Amino acid sequence: MKQATIIGSGLVGSLWAIYLNKAGYKVNLLERRPDMRKNPISAGKSINLAISYRGWKALDSIGAGDIIRKSAIPMYGRTVHHPDGTCSFQTYGINNQAIYSVSRGEINSVLMDLAESSGNTELYFDSYCTGIDMNKNIAYFEHNNNGVKFDIKSDVIFATDGAFSSVRYNSMQKMDRFSYSQNYIDDGYKEIILPANADGSYKLDKNSLHIWPRGRFMLIALPNPEGSFTCTLFMPFEGHKYCFNNLKTKHDVIALFREMFSDFYDLMPEIAETWDEHPISSLAIIRCFPWHFNQTVLMGDAAHATVPFYGQGMNAGFEDCTVLFGLMEKFGDDWKACFEAYEKLRKPNGDAVQDLSLQNYLIMRDKVNDPNFILQQKVEKRIHELYPDLYLPLYSMVSFSDIEYHTALEQGKKQDAEMKSFIEKHQITASMKDEQIDKIIHKALGKEILV
Amino acid sequence: MKQATIIGSGLVGSLWAIYLNKAGYKVNLLERRPDMRKNPISAGKSINLAISYRGWKALDSIGAGDIIRKSAIPMYGRTVHHPDGTCSFQTYGINNQAIYSVSRGEINSVLMDLAESSGNTELYFDSYCTGIDMNKNIAYFEHNNNGVKFDIKSDVIFATDGAFSSVRYNSMQKMDRFSYSQNYIDDGYKEIILPANADGSYKLDKNSLHIWPRGRFMLIALPNPEGSFTCTLFMPFEGHKYCFNNLKTKHDVIALFREMFSDFYDLMPEIAETWDEHPISSLAIIRCFPWHFNQTVLMGDAAHATVPFYGQGMNAGFEDCTVLFGLMEKFGDDWKACFEAYEKLRKPNGDAVQDLSLQNYLIMRDKVNDPNFILQQKVEKRIHELYPDLYLPLYSMVSFSDIEYHTALEQGKKQDAEMKSFIEKHQITASMKDEQIDKIIHKALGKEILV
Repeated sequence: MKQATIIGSGLVGSLWAIYLNKAGYKVNLLERRPDMRKNPISAGKSINLAISYRGWKALDSIGAGDIIRKSAIPMYGRTVHHPDGTCSFQTYGINNQAIYSVSRGEINSVLMDLAESSGNTELYFDSYCTGIDMNKNIAYFEHNNNGVKFDIKSDVIFATDGAFSSVRYNSMQKMDRFSYSQNYIDDGYKEIILPANADGSYKLDKNSLHIWPRGRFMLIALPNPEGSFTCTLFMPFEGHKYCFNNLKTKHDVIALFREMFSDFYDLMPEIAETWDEHPISSLAIIRCFPWHFNQTVLMGDAAHATVPFYGQGMNAGFEDCTVLFGLMEKFGDDWKACFEAYEKLRKPNGDAVQDLSLQNYLIMRDKVNDPNFILQQKVEKRIHELYPDLYLPLYSMVSFSDIEYHTALEQGKKQDAEMKSFIEKHQITASMKDEQIDKIIHKALGKEILV
Repeated sequence: MKQATIIGSGLVGSLWAIYLNKAGYKVNLLERRPDMRKNPISAGKSINLAISYRGWKALDSIGAGDIIRKSAIPMYGRTVHHPDGTCSFQTYGINNQAIYSVSRGEINSVLMDLAESSGNTELYFDSYCTGIDMNKNIAYFEHNNNGVKFDIKSDVIFATDGAFSSVRYNSMQKMDRFSYSQNYIDDGYKEIILPANADGSYKLDKNSLHIWPRGRFMLIALPNPEGSFTCTLFMPFEGHKYCFNNLKTKHDVIALFREMFSDFYDLMPEIAETWDEHPISSLAIIRCFPWHFNQTVLMGDAAHATVPFYGQGMNAGFEDCTVLFGLMEKFGDDWKACFEAYEKLRKPNGDAVQDLSLQNYLIMRDKVNDPNFILQQKVEKRIHELYPDLYLPLYSMVSFSDIEYHTALEQGKKQDAEMKSFIEKHQITASMKDEQIDKIIHKALGKEILV
């Protein structure tokens, strides 16, 4: 049987093991952490995630979609919490399209179980990859607990070991002409758990992603199956009135929440008591190229780690698997052809998902409050509803289709300019009646011309 | 006595040891290579360099300038070699200003000797830095030959270990919020030694930097003291008609030189025989931030390695020393204040020298052949000659002053636009007589108004 080594049994590595088993590979799947099915998830990783179209597509193709769907919570749009305590709702798509809140630990466990149950994936935990001989396809490991060193030779090596990939750091970064960047943004994040009510019910609407946009910072909340919400505060580390460095005492924390997130504070007056339960973590965009040397290749965050603001990190990593599997079907065991096509196809998408993520931070923390943005989004959505074949908003391209990310990014820019012109040209305003806007849309789009 | 550790005894490290001795520090200067004074310089490093104003300023301030001057060869301008074999000359400055070709090995040896002779610098060779404890100021080393491990604790640690700094890689890159990038450009380089004539005389004018600009690639030559020239061919690795990947046989090499560098080929018909004496090397821009953690700081290429096209790599590194020494005089042993001021002052200059270097590649390989560029340079130089207090061309700001690089870059952009307007407004052409151009300049500059 052909042998593959996968380094990192996170979401992408575990999914990829299943794909490789399907393709007839015997897989060694190595992980530097202990078995997360037996141990609690380590700090600093978010405990829930949003799955959208690309994620489901990959999960369905290996038969895991329906298992995950059982506990996935649909979020049909954003609930925007205004400073005065009022809320408004912005749908994400049409026809009940939704992104889904799921537990990172649960998907990972399901995927690891599926890989193991195939009988052709062997899992090794506590095994840190100290380097790869990329000429001989040998991966070197050291066991975390006993220091025992071992190595595995195989036909092909996949590095799915995340944003701080040991394979990339220990081996690829030493190769000539390997371009690499890790750029931290000025902002960090802290998680806060908003518990369920005493009766287990949700304290906020379960079926939306909650945002408290405050310009330079924001709080968001995603529902968990058992009634709680995982909330995340994103703000600059320093240099602003509202920044983590200015939150030194319980009093500072309470003052921030009372002043800026009053409705949240009312739901969770104990906020200051739980403040230290989660660390303040940093956020980085990591880029590199090439993604492969000989038979060793990077996938997922190891190749293109992004900031979390579009909820596309896992979805993009899963799509790497879908695309690479498609190329394996085309090129067979010609890994050179396969990896060259893979990095050529996926690198522009890795870059684009990062650009989109940064761009969406501005939208989430600021623009969702802007009347011009709200109007534009409304008109866009209506055009999309009335002429779904002619117009797909950027958010839908990213979250509800598998249009390549780089195409979505380019098309999105073009559409943004077109929508602004359209609104200006037809003097559409927020006070206009829906029927009036529809009439304008029909008049323009009936001729298939937007501007 | 206060103790300092310097990692890397290259140009910047050796110079910095002398500065630190002056400031009353006992210095341990560690180098991963053998003593270059006893061993030939390793491959892949250029053997000569251009010193300009900032370099001399630093060397003079520690008393090494006059020693180096003895063998430095002034280059007063560029000799541009055209495809038809003719040449033209473009002066760099006014009043015999020049950049100076010097041997890397010689400067380095002189600086190492000076540091050692102070009695307060101890040199360790073959000692690779495996990491730094940046909380305890302990640097860890391993001896290359015998594997013996040792460590040195000191008050302050300076990493001057070059573009692929081990301190940056082994320690800083693992720190949270350390932004880092290594970006390789598409082009590589190969060195070629054009020997002296049999009588020891030079085959080309000794007092200029020779360029064969060919649009997407170029050849350059700098004089060496003993009559030879170190020539460097810069071209893309792949993807172009003229690229390294297309130079597979001796025949290909000869064809390239015959066709594109015919006058050079006539001087060196044995080019293909010596082709393999030097490797094809890659070129990268390396950026990072912050430049210090606690009492460990990056200087020179370790902080801001650049491509070599402005000849400013060493000059910028030496200027780091001048600036940091100035800050030590201001802040004394308050290293926190000192390093914060240093990285705040120098980071924008590190970025700017990289931007300037990339920009100058375009100028050298292409624009020096462009009639518009030549005319603009001529007018600029004349304005500078006639009104030296009012106007300093970009090249002069970079090479003949210590105006901050970032100021030069910004000012250069502004001036470039102004010069274009000036030439257009006054309809200055290449066929215009010098007196006529002078008249236009006097008319405009007499009122201190350029455009």
